[in-house]
Amino acid sequence: MIQSRYKLIPQFTLKDEEGKDFSWTNLLGRYTVVYFYPKANTPGCTLEGIDFTRLLDEFNGNVIGISPDDCKAIASFKSKKGLRVKLLSDPDKIVAEQFGAAKDGKLIRSTFIVDPWGRIRREWIKVSVNGHAEEVLEEYKRIIEKDQTLNDDILVRRAFRGIRPDPVEDEKIETLLKAAQLAPSCMNKQPWRFLVVRTKENLEKLHSTLSEGNYWMKQAPVMLIVYTDDELGCQLSDRRNYSLFDTGTAVGLLLTQATQMGLVAHPVAGYDPVKIKEIFGLNGIIITVIAVGYWGNLDILNEKHATIELGNRIRKPLEEVAKFI
Amino acid sequence: MIQSRYKLIPQFTLKDEEGKDFSWTNLLGRYTVVYFYPKANTPGCTLEGIDFTRLLDEFNGNVIGISPDDCKAIASFKSKKGLRVKLLSDPDKIVAEQFGAAKDGKLIRSTFIVDPWGRIRREWIKVSVNGHAEEVLEEYKRIIEKDQTLNDDILVRRAFRGIRPDPVEDEKIETLLKAAQLAPSCMNKQPWRFLVVRTKENLEKLHSTLSEGNYWMKQAPVMLIVYTDDELGCQLSDRRNYSLFDTGTAVGLLLTQATQMGLVAHPVAGYDPVKIKEIFGLNGIIITVIAVGYWGNLDILNEKHATIELGNRIRKPLEEVAKFI
Repeated sequence: MIQSRYKLIPQFTLKDEEGKDFSWTNLLGRYTVVYFYPKANTPGCTLEGIDFTRLLDEFNGNVIGISPDDCKAIASFKSKKGLRVKLLSDPDKIVAEQFGAAKDGKLIRSTFIVDPWGRIRREWIKVSVNGHAEEVLEEYKRIIEKDQTLNDDILVRRAFRGIRPDPVEDEKIETLLKAAQLAPSCMNKQPWRFLVVRTKENLEKLHSTLSEGNYWMKQAPVMLIVYTDDELGCQLSDRRNYSLFDTGTAVGLLLTQATQMGLVAHPVAGYDPVKIKEIFGLNGIIITVIAVGYWGNLDILNEKHATIELGNRIRKPLEEVAKFI
Repeated sequence: MIQSRYKLIPQFTLKDEEGKDFSWTNLLGRYTVVYFYPKANTPGCTLEGIDFTRLLDEFNGNVIGISPDDCKAIASFKSKKGLRVKLLSDPDKIVAEQFGAAKDGKLIRSTFIVDPWGRIRREWIKVSVNGHAEEVLEEYKRIIEKDQTLNDDILVRRAFRGIRPDPVEDEKIETLLKAAQLAPSCMNKQPWRFLVVRTKENLEKLHSTLSEGNYWMKQAPVMLIVYTDDELGCQLSDRRNYSLFDTGTAVGLLLTQATQMGLVAHPVAGYDPVKIKEIFGLNGIIITVIAVGYWGNLDILNEKHATIELGNRIRKPLEEVAKFI
């Protein structure tokens, strides 16, 4: 199954109002509300069904009610009360247990917002019905809106130079590398390699290879030498060198992870790659060196860099790099 | 200034207890609590100062109290009450106004959690002092813990194949491309190019170039042809081809953005690049084709792919790709 720190929905199949199988895979690729209710036709459950039905369009039709009632009971409940939500029968409360909506064989009225990857993004256990559907809708919309927005760590990231010399723990660097390592690669070859330089002695050796314009990197407590080689990745027809491309993808993930963690990660090309290979005994292509550290040391920057640091970000208009056909 | 959807702290300089300048840049690279209080030595403000002082170590020492009092007053307040938080003097309430902690010249007791990029991640306007510092600490820890965790969209992402044919709006594809476009590149050359294929006719043309194993891509409502060429990016000494590397970085950002939006984005190498260039009139290196769409269409997969889809993710151990020195 997929990996996540969120609780994931169980891989269930239940019967619906018509006695047909309904699989958990129907929830994938969609934002869905799954609610568990104790018994069809009782007052609270009726009100809850009516409330979710009334708001169903705003939930994009994706509301599923699950109860221990049998298929016949939920079919009659649905038609009698004019419900439009999908109803499923979970007679043994097994799925309810898996969601955490039943304990010691007793169903607990509960609601879950499930995202397109099956992650439970929000849960309400022991629900009180009044106004509940409205509260769920508000949260449902909030989650979708946040997800559909340009990632703020991607947006805020810049090639910042004003790095403080304060140390960065190895544990944090490991998290960056784990993010990089989760990149896809051609034939899953994972052609990226990292040398994490963070002792004073080794940093000083690396400083000697930097171009003059990269004076600011000497403040960085950690630098990552990123390298690869042709034989580490796929080399395919028509000049497709996946060693370099895949390593770039891994660095893309690393940069976003660093920004989320409040770390500057600034990749540069201004260094002597041959000298780096000599000093550190590396082979292949030294494709970038990434300076890592905390931001805020703006006083070290020369005038030009100080202006860039807080200036506007310059990018080509989208239509210059992309075309829709 | 940096771009963000969060409100950013103003670029202020205020005098501290010793009459020394204190710049907003001291907040960068750190998680800081900034609280505004009306008047030194009054009961509520004293209690608030004492509470934040008591919890100061848990805030990593990063708590700043700002009031309209002059430097002498805050110095005496600090020593008399044994406060250890940093106090700043904002006599004209200008910084308070900029934060949103003053209105019509009147200071409103308020607290802000500022992250390492100067983003205001949480605010309390009109604070009631009792138990407030504890509440702020809880939120402060929650934000840091979340930020320091491996990004869940990076973690959950897989090269999923079970794509539903449901259409994906151009607007969403534009958001993906905007994320890609925010990647860094050597000399800011932005060497990546995207052809977004989403009409039936053009998709069918593209299908004819796919390898047999990529049958599942025929379900995808959108495919991105990603290409570049040597002269679009830096070509530096020792085989450093930044066209490919930078395009990879851009794709790394795009994949994370897609996952956040609930979209599968699966880059493949199994296609005929020469045929793609002929059909669509492109030049250069067709480095990948990315299938985009919603997940959950698992029934279309052959047995091998169905197993992989929900199987374990295989990666080399970290020590095979990274070394700390």
